[in-house]
Amino acid sequence: MEQGRLEFWFEFASTYSYPAAMRIEEAAGAAGVPLKWRPFLLGPIFASQGWGDSPFNLYPAKGRYMWRDMQRICEKYRLPFRRPGKFPRSGLLAARVALAAEAEPWCPRFVRAVYRANFAEDRDISRLETVAEILASVGQNPREMVARAESSENKQRLREQTGWAAALGIFGAPTFIIGNELFWGNDRLEDALEFYRRTISPIA
Amino acid sequence: MEQGRLEFWFEFASTYSYPAAMRIEEAAGAAGVPLKWRPFLLGPIFASQGWGDSPFNLYPAKGRYMWRDMQRICEKYRLPFRRPGKFPRSGLLAARVALAAEAEPWCPRFVRAVYRANFAEDRDISRLETVAEILASVGQNPREMVARAESSENKQRLREQTGWAAALGIFGAPTFIIGNELFWGNDRLEDALEFYRRTISPIA
Repeated sequence: MEQGRLEFWFEFASTYSYPAAMRIEEAAGAAGVPLKWRPFLLGPIFASQGWGDSPFNLYPAKGRYMWRDMQRICEKYRLPFRRPGKFPRSGLLAARVALAAEAEPWCPRFVRAVYRANFAEDRDISRLETVAEILASVGQNPREMVARAESSENKQRLREQTGWAAALGIFGAPTFIIGNELFWGNDRLEDALEFYRRTISPIA
Repeated sequence: MEQGRLEFWFEFASTYSYPAAMRIEEAAGAAGVPLKWRPFLLGPIFASQGWGDSPFNLYPAKGRYMWRDMQRICEKYRLPFRRPGKFPRSGLLAARVALAAEAEPWCPRFVRAVYRANFAEDRDISRLETVAEILASVGQNPREMVARAESSENKQRLREQTGWAAALGIFGAPTFIIGNELFWGNDRLEDALEFYRRTISPIA
């Protein structure tokens, strides 16, 4: 049983994962909730629903709404935001890095820097050069870390983690999981933390 | 310009419209925001996106999540909830009544009673008998009101209102509109009211 924590399932291409990623460490910390970062890929999950692209591209009215909504949300949380010149951008390499680095104390900083690059700086996070620059910016050796990320073992782990996401019932990002409870969407972070408070007994 | 109010666009078959419909009159009243109820049909809008059924049926993981989420939301707002034996149920007749009655003071009570019938009492709101009973329960003459609802003028008005919804960029329900700003989802009601407070100048 891994009920005593909040799992944060995120995809680097996902717009609403951006504000969630920027807020979650502080919010979970303030609520005293242990946090587990869980990078995964939405692409295979969307493909299994018959979607070859982001639903925000497939359904234009929904897409137009989402971009305006992102502006408002980022204003609300005082987060910088610039609509990316390309959407979605593949978060595959960044997700591999985040998974390979999940035990490293700098991992959350890396995750936030990737989101900032994509959604505040309009940089192409699908490119090796961008990910390498971000790794360097958080004090890591890009060559070494990319090699770990691109190892066949780590690639396989990300595939498994994505399969696990589907098995858990995840259909979008961000998703917060506590025990068997799913909360979908940046706007549910507070509900997830409140659920934790009400249901998880603190260890005295 | 009709900026000085909040438009509540709802569909009787829509699960998340239920808590919004139950909460909105009190919430808007407390915030001093004039409210306009706007029944419409999601069916034609979904059809234009290629969906012949509710996305909650077309995408089972999303559907499973939604039903659990509805339980949690209704607990949160202390609303009765029973998962309907059939979903979705056509809200066509009820929407025609709500539109024909939009100027009547009992209209909000009728709307809430229809939602309660569908999502708390598992009654078949698509049936004339159910709608007639609900009309009687709010003190109206069912025969007379159904005749007004089923007039060709009123049917045409509902078609136009649904076309207008699509033109406004509505792709789901509930949707709250203030001026040109859309807020989608029960969980955005408070954001919509806050937007009103910040942007609409009160008349002294």
